[in-house]
Amino acid sequence: MQDVPNSELGTMMTDTPSLSPTGDPWLLTPGPLTTSPTVKAAMQHDFGSRDHNFIAINTRMRERLAGLVNGGDDYVCVPMQGSGTFAVEAMLGTLVPKDGKVLVLVNGAYGERIAKILDYHGRAKVVQQCAENLPVNVGQLEETLSADSAITHVVAVHCETTTGILNPLKEISAATARQGRKLLIDAMSAFGAVPLEASDVTFDAVAASSNKCIEGTPGMGFCIVRKDTLEACAGNCPSLSLDLYDQWVAMEKNAQWRFTPPVQVIAAFDQALNEFEDEGGVAGRGARYRENCKILLDGMADLGFEALLPAELQAPIIVTFLMPSHPRFDFTLFYDRLKEKGYVIYPGKLTVAETFRIGCIGRLGAKEMHGALEAIKDTLAEMGVDNCAPAAAA
Amino acid sequence: MQDVPNSELGTMMTDTPSLSPTGDPWLLTPGPLTTSPTVKAAMQHDFGSRDHNFIAINTRMRERLAGLVNGGDDYVCVPMQGSGTFAVEAMLGTLVPKDGKVLVLVNGAYGERIAKILDYHGRAKVVQQCAENLPVNVGQLEETLSADSAITHVVAVHCETTTGILNPLKEISAATARQGRKLLIDAMSAFGAVPLEASDVTFDAVAASSNKCIEGTPGMGFCIVRKDTLEACAGNCPSLSLDLYDQWVAMEKNAQWRFTPPVQVIAAFDQALNEFEDEGGVAGRGARYRENCKILLDGMADLGFEALLPAELQAPIIVTFLMPSHPRFDFTLFYDRLKEKGYVIYPGKLTVAETFRIGCIGRLGAKEMHGALEAIKDTLAEMGVDNCAPAAAA
Repeated sequence: MQDVPNSELGTMMTDTPSLSPTGDPWLLTPGPLTTSPTVKAAMQHDFGSRDHNFIAINTRMRERLAGLVNGGDDYVCVPMQGSGTFAVEAMLGTLVPKDGKVLVLVNGAYGERIAKILDYHGRAKVVQQCAENLPVNVGQLEETLSADSAITHVVAVHCETTTGILNPLKEISAATARQGRKLLIDAMSAFGAVPLEASDVTFDAVAASSNKCIEGTPGMGFCIVRKDTLEACAGNCPSLSLDLYDQWVAMEKNAQWRFTPPVQVIAAFDQALNEFEDEGGVAGRGARYRENCKILLDGMADLGFEALLPAELQAPIIVTFLMPSHPRFDFTLFYDRLKEKGYVIYPGKLTVAETFRIGCIGRLGAKEMHGALEAIKDTLAEMGVDNCAPAAAA
Repeated sequence: MQDVPNSELGTMMTDTPSLSPTGDPWLLTPGPLTTSPTVKAAMQHDFGSRDHNFIAINTRMRERLAGLVNGGDDYVCVPMQGSGTFAVEAMLGTLVPKDGKVLVLVNGAYGERIAKILDYHGRAKVVQQCAENLPVNVGQLEETLSADSAITHVVAVHCETTTGILNPLKEISAATARQGRKLLIDAMSAFGAVPLEASDVTFDAVAASSNKCIEGTPGMGFCIVRKDTLEACAGNCPSLSLDLYDQWVAMEKNAQWRFTPPVQVIAAFDQALNEFEDEGGVAGRGARYRENCKILLDGMADLGFEALLPAELQAPIIVTFLMPSHPRFDFTLFYDRLKEKGYVIYPGKLTVAETFRIGCIGRLGAKEMHGALEAIKDTLAEMGVDNCAPAAAA
């Protein structure tokens, strides 16, 4: 399925590329990710969406996901067709009432997307913007809430994938709770690897997706919502498809989806949840990713690359590196050459600096991280790049 | 993957069930459907969504789908994550402006769903309701349009899956065009098997999904839209995720999806389109389904079942049968027993009569339709049902 593209450097490649068990390049991206062969094998079947077997899978999936926040019966899981953004939009559209006012904490593209969704929905909002390389300022958050009693909800991004920064969720949650407002969380890229438990974080809802740290395939998102909050949300959502309340009521009634579910994606996600539990849940998965991230940070530093963030702000999900200023460093060629060697990396998303990103999530371990570093080292040699310092430090 | 459920009738079953090549029961439903092993095998790979290989698949898919309506460069295809309903909601939300007024032609649950979506969006609408067993009344449509010049759009369902009825799309389109209004079509269950060409039908947009007559897996829908219409649709949609205009503009720019696409579903759909073309496109696919439908109608009539619709109103997609009134006929048992034999059928959706449905789409041919009929015959014998006439005729 995956063609090996020709590079401008010709046909001198003699190494066999390192490929995943299904013959694909390793995806060092924020998703879609490399998934296990057994996860993908679960998609080799057809399921009737109204049939008992599928209903059992669906019920089990919802229970297991809700269990991850350790909030007992206070929380329910409502899945949603589409990408993670669909789940975030469903959460915002359903939980923020027409007369609500939202404070959005923005330090990257995903925070900005939340603000954009609220504009689509015509909801009142205030944006607390901070630099992309800094975590959300909790003191400023608390000041804003003190000063504006009309604000009903705060929305935070747990790991902002734009840079890979980890926002201080516990502190954000404590400040929001002290001020008596409700917290909604976009935990997309961190959920399942960075702890988020109801005993530590006071929140009304969290949105994530099938194909991040749980390592399923893309096509489905989900929200984990306080049941008493959701019960009061009839009639809020401006979209039928994305109405989380309507989806929840229907699913509680007969355990079925209102509209055709992506059955193969859900079967794969069920298998991904098995493998997630086998690895020790959030603790085990998080430990592997932290190890991946450390190997990546250390190895790239050894090669002379500079990471955007200091280690203490870095989530173990995806790392942003500053683009080397060396005249022979060409990112397109670098990307293509790495892909030929079996490793797909990711472009940058910052507006303020030339960057690229390398992910450490998905079905990858120490072997693949070291392999990627080896491939990067070889590619730099092929390109004749002997200094990876960025422009400012060059 | 598929457990064989225990039936209340005990363990007397000795026949090996007829199963699909991947070991699953045959799905005689309106979808999710039985897909070919090669379509499902295309989901055995991981793809980076920003990578060249995936972008090539995406571009090819959009071109092939747009080509199916034979409208040249006048039409573009915009895919949408989620189920078919997401694509229908995206079409309505994006193409109907805030000051638009919509005439919805309703003769079943899918027409009603369109009306519900317009209510969510706060768009003005008129509903032309007719009985579920009758096609849309075109004379009445033209009268309504003549009498109400505020109506800007007409929305029609091509095959109403509630019953399986085929609505008179050419006549609806001609009347709508004569009155100078725009036609939007929900062709979900018929697209790819019942012809819909721009030369025959004047329309602004049609919505369908990956897992109906093209025989892909579920997780994605698409709209085929007149380009000049879409160009004027910025700012209409009440949802970011479902904004077809925004999705189109982004995809024209870099051939990528705005938000994570269901990559495996799209790879499967690409393979499904290969197999669709190999079968002779709409003509070949439609011929197989018509043959399936004829075998089903004839065989069920021989067993004494009564179809809801006369043959001339029946689309070759799914057939509604009236529930037998025989005291020993128990639908749950009938369903379970057929499933044990390898055939999954579908409950009815009518409010006015007790019915069930059997589909004739998906990777099924004459052999499977005859097999299903044989299983039905055996099940009736096991249940002791010797007369399948419905209540009224019993």
